[in-house]
Amino acid sequence: MKAAAPERGLPRCEFEDRLERAQRGMAAAGFDALLLTTEPEVRWFSGFLTEFWQSPTRPWFLVVPRDGRPIAVIPGIGAPLMARTWIDDIRTWPSPQPGDEGVTQLAGALRDAGAATGRIGLPMGPETMLRMTLNDYRQLQDHLPAVAEFVDAGALLRELRMVKSQREIAKIAHICAIASNAFAEVPRFAAPGQPLTETFRAFRLALLRNGADNVPYLVGASAPGGYEDVITPPGEDPLSDGDILMMDTGALFDGYFCDFDRNWAIGHADDDSRRAYDTLYRATDAGQAAARPGATCSDLFGAMRAVIVADGYECGNVGRLGHGLGMQLTEWPSHTPEDHTVLQPGMVLTLEPGLAIGPGRSMVHEEDIVIRAGGAELLSRRAPPELPVID
Amino acid sequence: MKAAAPERGLPRCEFEDRLERAQRGMAAAGFDALLLTTEPEVRWFSGFLTEFWQSPTRPWFLVVPRDGRPIAVIPGIGAPLMARTWIDDIRTWPSPQPGDEGVTQLAGALRDAGAATGRIGLPMGPETMLRMTLNDYRQLQDHLPAVAEFVDAGALLRELRMVKSQREIAKIAHICAIASNAFAEVPRFAAPGQPLTETFRAFRLALLRNGADNVPYLVGASAPGGYEDVITPPGEDPLSDGDILMMDTGALFDGYFCDFDRNWAIGHADDDSRRAYDTLYRATDAGQAAARPGATCSDLFGAMRAVIVADGYECGNVGRLGHGLGMQLTEWPSHTPEDHTVLQPGMVLTLEPGLAIGPGRSMVHEEDIVIRAGGAELLSRRAPPELPVID
Repeated sequence: MKAAAPERGLPRCEFEDRLERAQRGMAAAGFDALLLTTEPEVRWFSGFLTEFWQSPTRPWFLVVPRDGRPIAVIPGIGAPLMARTWIDDIRTWPSPQPGDEGVTQLAGALRDAGAATGRIGLPMGPETMLRMTLNDYRQLQDHLPAVAEFVDAGALLRELRMVKSQREIAKIAHICAIASNAFAEVPRFAAPGQPLTETFRAFRLALLRNGADNVPYLVGASAPGGYEDVITPPGEDPLSDGDILMMDTGALFDGYFCDFDRNWAIGHADDDSRRAYDTLYRATDAGQAAARPGATCSDLFGAMRAVIVADGYECGNVGRLGHGLGMQLTEWPSHTPEDHTVLQPGMVLTLEPGLAIGPGRSMVHEEDIVIRAGGAELLSRRAPPELPVID
Repeated sequence: MKAAAPERGLPRCEFEDRLERAQRGMAAAGFDALLLTTEPEVRWFSGFLTEFWQSPTRPWFLVVPRDGRPIAVIPGIGAPLMARTWIDDIRTWPSPQPGDEGVTQLAGALRDAGAATGRIGLPMGPETMLRMTLNDYRQLQDHLPAVAEFVDAGALLRELRMVKSQREIAKIAHICAIASNAFAEVPRFAAPGQPLTETFRAFRLALLRNGADNVPYLVGASAPGGYEDVITPPGEDPLSDGDILMMDTGALFDGYFCDFDRNWAIGHADDDSRRAYDTLYRATDAGQAAARPGATCSDLFGAMRAVIVADGYECGNVGRLGHGLGMQLTEWPSHTPEDHTVLQPGMVLTLEPGLAIGPGRSMVHEEDIVIRAGGAELLSRRAPPELPVID
């Protein structure tokens, strides 16, 4: 039942290449070091993969000097796992230790990286956050000479992470295949009268049985003639004749996400729903056709929106018609009128057109693609061209 | 197979009570408003529950005035779900919109809350983070009069959340029962020769089949005579004779976590492992006996450590011997020598003694308890008193 899985982890050369590209960018931007605090940022540079980030208690730091190798400053509990990555400068403290939660060690690492009197790049812009406490961030500034400057490195990290390597694409393609297989099973276990919680549970089980490592994200709805809300956990209401059932999943393989959805009509498909489905199917086609190197995200938005509007609909309340995808469920860029990011080979994106069928009734389609030299390649197995019915 | 589940969600009176307690604390601390940005903080005040927080793209804000009702300032995509909570002042913007990611709206809400020229409480201390970008945080400060002051509200939020209501305890007890049932199934599906990835997968499936909504956290190891590392994802190595297999899970029911582990010997149990297991079993007993209202976390640490040391072992590299638990996998307090938090009825805690058996070989036990007037009540079903063998 399971698809053949790509090898887990990434070879050392991939991390060396990432570091080299990062340091080239740091030199160009005038950063003396990068300070990274979040799971995807630390993992991108180190390969450090664990669900232990679920615990908010302990901060984790990676310092990337402009020259030389990264320095990990982490709680002692993580030392054995970090030692299995390519990082060899690993400094620990016995966390939790709220009085000095690694801050003194971190200041030392920044000094050793030659950045204590220079410019320290931190992601500060869209879709980033600082995963250390505000008090510790201030305390770190107090530990460094007043001349040390924290500057926004968000744009550099975005550039580095937006284009995926072939090995990363293989992992995303694998989880997309797993989710495609699991979606294909839905008509076997979903039936009118089933509480939505049970439909979701059965789908999670199908994802895991098909080879997903975990399912951090599963949202959706089942509602008469379309759903208003695309982010709600399931309730106990039964699947009912005339409902549109939608499930949207971000499942994981080896730390990489898929992110796409599928729609079904329960019992029968009414004309409004079939027409909306057809519009979204063609909007997705238009997005896929537009997704070529050199085009922009706003072009993709325009191509999908044109089909929706030509058919007399308005776009939904999601705020965009797709986005980047990889180590996080959603990454830059966004398909909006304002996002002029130029598509490059290796970018992995979702196409996610949505529309309002009527008051409180909407529908959303989603597929995952990778940009290749010749155009878009589907990673998810394309949804059926007509709204499938479960009865 | 499934245990009877408590009702999902919480009644309005529970949120009214939380708000009243919070506002009493705000008045005492001199806060004019609280600004909340993270999933558990927003959910604790509002009941807003969704896996959509997986996406880092959009910030979510809740403003709690010192008088009056909370104001939600959220992306439009979340409006239908927020409208189903008890919050009625819901302000939205069409996110993503990186140029003004809700900041203008948020400043307006703080003004309407009467806090724009006052003291705005934000969690800044241990185990907290700010889930908005540093640039937006600065932009927010620019939108407010210079006299507005952001101050640390971490201690208040910790006090509010540390003691759980009976309804919260019922949810945690339910997921603990589910995980206990799933752990009891492990000897049925785990066997020597099975790759650890498959053991983990089978256990995740068992958790879901037994009624878990999701399994955000599953770590562990299988290694000869004890494991070094307690946070690593599973590899493909097979369970081997002489291994100690450990799995530690944080599974979810209705947004509340369990967090405990179990150990098994594969093939046979050697004397060292059996002795270590026995010590940890008695250390857990000692922790449970010490866990009474009025005792401190440092007392619990001391009680567990005394058993470990008396038997000639050193504690492991985890940094503490247990912690709080609830809407997050780990919450305050920590069982360390320095944490003098006084135990109160309604606190939910883990008891997590660990020890080093030898170089690179450790063992960890974990149970979940709730503090009652008369002492500790187990929420997890107690591990067997002797190291169980899977063969």
